[in-house]
Amino acid sequence: MAHRAAIGIFDSGIGGLTVAAEFSRQLENEDLIYLGDTARLPYGTRSPKTVARYAERAAGALLKYPIKALVVACNTASAYALDHLKAATDVPVLGVIQPGARAAVSAPHGGKIGIAGTAGTIASGAYQNAIRAQDPNVETVQMPWPLLVSLAEEGWIDNRVARLTLATYLDTFVEAEVGALVLGCTHYPVFKNTIQEVLASDFSGVQIALIDSAEAVTEELRALLQENDLEAPHRAGRRSFFCTDAADRFKRVGSTFLGEDLASVTTIDL
Amino acid sequence: MAHRAAIGIFDSGIGGLTVAAEFSRQLENEDLIYLGDTARLPYGTRSPKTVARYAERAAGALLKYPIKALVVACNTASAYALDHLKAATDVPVLGVIQPGARAAVSAPHGGKIGIAGTAGTIASGAYQNAIRAQDPNVETVQMPWPLLVSLAEEGWIDNRVARLTLATYLDTFVEAEVGALVLGCTHYPVFKNTIQEVLASDFSGVQIALIDSAEAVTEELRALLQENDLEAPHRAGRRSFFCTDAADRFKRVGSTFLGEDLASVTTIDL
Repeated sequence: MAHRAAIGIFDSGIGGLTVAAEFSRQLENEDLIYLGDTARLPYGTRSPKTVARYAERAAGALLKYPIKALVVACNTASAYALDHLKAATDVPVLGVIQPGARAAVSAPHGGKIGIAGTAGTIASGAYQNAIRAQDPNVETVQMPWPLLVSLAEEGWIDNRVARLTLATYLDTFVEAEVGALVLGCTHYPVFKNTIQEVLASDFSGVQIALIDSAEAVTEELRALLQENDLEAPHRAGRRSFFCTDAADRFKRVGSTFLGEDLASVTTIDL
Repeated sequence: MAHRAAIGIFDSGIGGLTVAAEFSRQLENEDLIYLGDTARLPYGTRSPKTVARYAERAAGALLKYPIKALVVACNTASAYALDHLKAATDVPVLGVIQPGARAAVSAPHGGKIGIAGTAGTIASGAYQNAIRAQDPNVETVQMPWPLLVSLAEEGWIDNRVARLTLATYLDTFVEAEVGALVLGCTHYPVFKNTIQEVLASDFSGVQIALIDSAEAVTEELRALLQENDLEAPHRAGRRSFFCTDAADRFKRVGSTFLGEDLASVTTIDL
């Protein structure tokens, strides 16, 4: 029976679809149930208490389904609600911050790691704490990049405005000479290529390793499933998508993030 | 007693403070009670039903105070919830769309009016309908400008990214040869100077009249107060600010929109 259970994933909106996309590529046998809490997005500028309340509701909706792991595919919710969610259920709960921090510390960072994220994630200090817990000798530099969420949702991934915005934001990290940069918001990985191009064109090709926590959490989830003998048998995993408002927009913009069409999206109330 | 009652104003967040600022300047005797529904912002990308529900709750919170007029200082809520709010209370309710449409039709538009706003406001067609009801011979061109809200909240009002974004957005309206442009979101008026500069530098100084509905609704409110003998006596009006989440951020970013410090902000639950 456990083998028929799905992976539950939630985010405030479409950003977490970059995590779902990574699961789709690397854990293709698994059934995925994705919930985007589009009626309450963005989480990134809200207070810790409000984010925790919203995350609890979203998690509760997923836990009504037979799920074998719950992935909080939102950095702000991972920062403010993970411990609380873990305490509230027996289902294993994974956030994106610990895996991202581990991946950053393992990267060639040269002693200094940059962290970009929403206002909420940066204010929480969650990545700083997680990185220092892994390696107290690493220096961290952090900065909110709030515009990227809107740029991504506008589909302005590699136009002149996106490049100029990234050049403005990257300047701080290049000045600080970070060796690795955590893309601490699930919207940001769609800009990976553009960031590399801007580093090449505007910053003399300086090398900065980009840390995508979607990749890191996929490895962690794979290990969890293997260790607990919970892997799905060989088959094509099913994908179900839910959101809490504006399903048309979720479906349309979401396809950029998932990298494929969202077959169908169901709106639910939380 | 009526003379002690205040003007109630609400918006999804800080954008409506541009309307409150106009009231402060032009109706300086009036007491203002402002509510920014920051726990549920932005309204601009949500479904009509959700916007209406949120607007109803925000209005309900203001109607607990002795108010003599309720101003919906949010274009999306004006588009989707105004009729409903009017039906639910005896207090006069003003939106920003009708006044904005009247001001646009009165401007030197040369037969063609552009409308920029959030995705929700544009999808509603509310400005198009209101303008055509005033003058069926006017042609309209409309386009969502979703990035401006984030730019404004980032404080990027006149830097290179703001100018490039505006140049990209304005191109459609310049190509269409509109004579007037409705700034159909209460965040947009902070960009008025930058828009004029970009029209001068990137579009050979083409003349487009910018329609700020904050100014238009102020005229309408003044007329309403005069006609009903509801004007406050000569005195310094009091200002009270409420929000539903993240009061620190509301206070900090809001000062740009209000044009002065927000003396104190109280967080309430809706």
